Amino acid sequence: MSRFLHVIALKDAVATATRIAPAPVPEKMPVGSATGRVLAEDIPADMDIPGFDRSVVDGYAVRSEDTTGSGDTTPAHLQCSGMVVMGSLDPNLTVTQGTCVYIPTGGVLPKGADAVVMLEHTEETADTVLVKRPVSYGENVLLHDDDFSKGEIVLAAGRKLTPQDMGFLAAVGCTEVTVAKKPVVGIISTGNELVPATARPGPGQVRDANASMLAAYLAEYGCETWLYGIVRDEREAFETVTSRAVRECDVVLISGGSSKDDRDMTAGVIAGRGEVLVHGIAIAPGKPTIIGRIEGKPVIGLPGHPAAAFVVLIAVVTPLLDRMLGLKKPVLRATGAVLGESIPSQKGREEYARVRIDNGVATPLFGKAGLLNTLVKSDGFVRIPPGCEGLEKGTFVEVILW
Amino acid sequence: MSRFLHVIALKDAVATATRIAPAPVPEKMPVGSATGRVLAEDIPADMDIPGFDRSVVDGYAVRSEDTTGSGDTTPAHLQCSGMVVMGSLDPNLTVTQGTCVYIPTGGVLPKGADAVVMLEHTEETADTVLVKRPVSYGENVLLHDDDFSKGEIVLAAGRKLTPQDMGFLAAVGCTEVTVAKKPVVGIISTGNELVPATARPGPGQVRDANASMLAAYLAEYGCETWLYGIVRDEREAFETVTSRAVRECDVVLISGGSSKDDRDMTAGVIAGRGEVLVHGIAIAPGKPTIIGRIEGKPVIGLPGHPAAAFVVLIAVVTPLLDRMLGLKKPVLRATGAVLGESIPSQKGREEYARVRIDNGVATPLFGKAGLLNTLVKSDGFVRIPPGCEGLEKGTFVEVILW
Repeated sequence: MSRFLHVIALKDAVATATRIAPAPVPEKMPVGSATGRVLAEDIPADMDIPGFDRSVVDGYAVRSEDTTGSGDTTPAHLQCSGMVVMGSLDPNLTVTQGTCVYIPTGGVLPKGADAVVMLEHTEETADTVLVKRPVSYGENVLLHDDDFSKGEIVLAAGRKLTPQDMGFLAAVGCTEVTVAKKPVVGIISTGNELVPATARPGPGQVRDANASMLAAYLAEYGCETWLYGIVRDEREAFETVTSRAVRECDVVLISGGSSKDDRDMTAGVIAGRGEVLVHGIAIAPGKPTIIGRIEGKPVIGLPGHPAAAFVVLIAVVTPLLDRMLGLKKPVLRATGAVLGESIPSQKGREEYARVRIDNGVATPLFGKAGLLNTLVKSDGFVRIPPGCEGLEKGTFVEVILW
Repeated sequence: MSRFLHVIALKDAVATATRIAPAPVPEKMPVGSATGRVLAEDIPADMDIPGFDRSVVDGYAVRSEDTTGSGDTTPAHLQCSGMVVMGSLDPNLTVTQGTCVYIPTGGVLPKGADAVVMLEHTEETADTVLVKRPVSYGENVLLHDDDFSKGEIVLAAGRKLTPQDMGFLAAVGCTEVTVAKKPVVGIISTGNELVPATARPGPGQVRDANASMLAAYLAEYGCETWLYGIVRDEREAFETVTSRAVRECDVVLISGGSSKDDRDMTAGVIAGRGEVLVHGIAIAPGKPTIIGRIEGKPVIGLPGHPAAAFVVLIAVVTPLLDRMLGLKKPVLRATGAVLGESIPSQKGREEYARVRIDNGVATPLFGKAGLLNTLVKSDGFVRIPPGCEGLEKGTFVEVILW
């Protein structure tokens, strides 16, 4: 293997990662557990919604022309000829000239009526309703297809389902949806210095933090994650685990291994069983990233430094997952903030600077990529594009929230 | 019950809701499923992390003074006296004057060495290493407590655990955490016009969208949700279900019922079994909201219009849940955008205008609160404070993302 990396631009690395992403696999599931899943079908309204003309206030259904010119001192006198009962339709209930009908919010607008006067603008007397404000045609009425029209595609394939969408799906009587199957992501930890989180590290050893972090992120993002534990640098054992993970998963992440030897072994194992497509990305932190493919499945070698691994997870692995999920519009997770300190950057590579946000001020957390604390203490990151030599204090920046 | 509402300011309503919130209940759980849960204990580092001085690059461990003055044409010549093996500590490995030791990224800095020269800045000859750049004391070295010091509180009670935090918890060997128990939220739907999502609405009927929307939001926010189905406006049945929900849950949401009669019945049932504290909030949409308490448990009557119910869920119910979870710092979910159209607002009430965001432009989605579509098509909302009569097109606004 080559001793040094062949660094390519981040956008080219992302293009490679998304190009080799397996296509989304649709599966049907009950709508009740589908929040956060990505739709694999278009969902039309099955009927006009609300389905009938309904009042949006409590008041009296009227013919709007009967209220023309009415006011506090010149009320229109209307005869109340009945009331709308919620959830039912009385075919005999009609509003004729000079009459009105009591209607609660959500009630069906009776025949003959074309508007509703709010209760607050009326006064009841013995057998007459005094209307003190004119209403115009259609006022306070929701038309039968104001919310959604029958056949209208409201939720399109590729959308990540929100809680609000669950309201719409209930409204159209949808009980089952076709969504993209959760990608199964295998995580292999490598590095002779690693011990499991449950062990007490001996001299020169550290607990494996990255696997837990990656697994938690992926589960939250909508993946199934399979942990293959820690593999030491015996090539044969590494190959066996990698083959098994490739067989059992849709994508395999190999969590380095930050040393050259580890990286070389990872690249060697991928090259031996498949092909290495990218070895080195112009991103900081995150340079020593490997993108490869074995038996048609993406195998990504992540850097060993936690901050680097996390940045590559977001910058490279997430677009790959989005492609596997068929996600059309990634969920917005960004905020604007003023930079509290200047951030230097090196031209030619993308810098992902971790920042903490307090009252609209983004403070960069400088620190080596080997530190977990810049991740734990930050709210997100500021992306500094490759053509830029850094950002000045006071600049208004977009912070991508973790 | 009073025919019209006694409207109070949103901040006072939120103060009432949080005042009656039950205290957080701690529970222990395995760390592996704790992402998104709110910590109920402080988590200190159990040891210095990384725990030993380690290299952050592949290279040679040196005494920095031995590299002073070195350059491409004036390299320092050092004798390589061995190599650091990952994950172990060789007590005999020492760097003395004029020598160096090969060290991979993450390796233990050997005795005598105080810096590491990157491999890229060296050249190996037969038995000598040529160093072509000077390094300063501590360069490329992570000190034993650079990430976290033993005893330092890294994650404080009240924090919502992120995937990054899972990395830290693994690093400190934490396998179990104490978090706030998930609040159990009961949802009762009222309204004679409602039918379940599985039914075909008859004349004058609509499917219950709100219960599904509320349940999905609450589950995503970290609650258990119990659905009590649709109760029609028979007072006795309503009281029975409410009593059962109060007994079985920590908080009860009564999803209106947008008509005055429904609201009055909800208020009547709460008043009959407990007390009504708030009946009407100066917020749009969302005015006809009820905050009450039965047997010490919060019972919230939400407006029936979907957009109103959702806004009140976010503006009033979420702060109550945050208090029950002991959440100290709500998760940031906002972005800046330029308003694409002016939004009018009425002085004296808070307006929650739904907006869609495209390329940094926030377009208001005007529409009656009875429409689901403004929710499904929006990315979040712009809050217009009560003292403000609206926002002009072109204003830079903060959009709170759903």
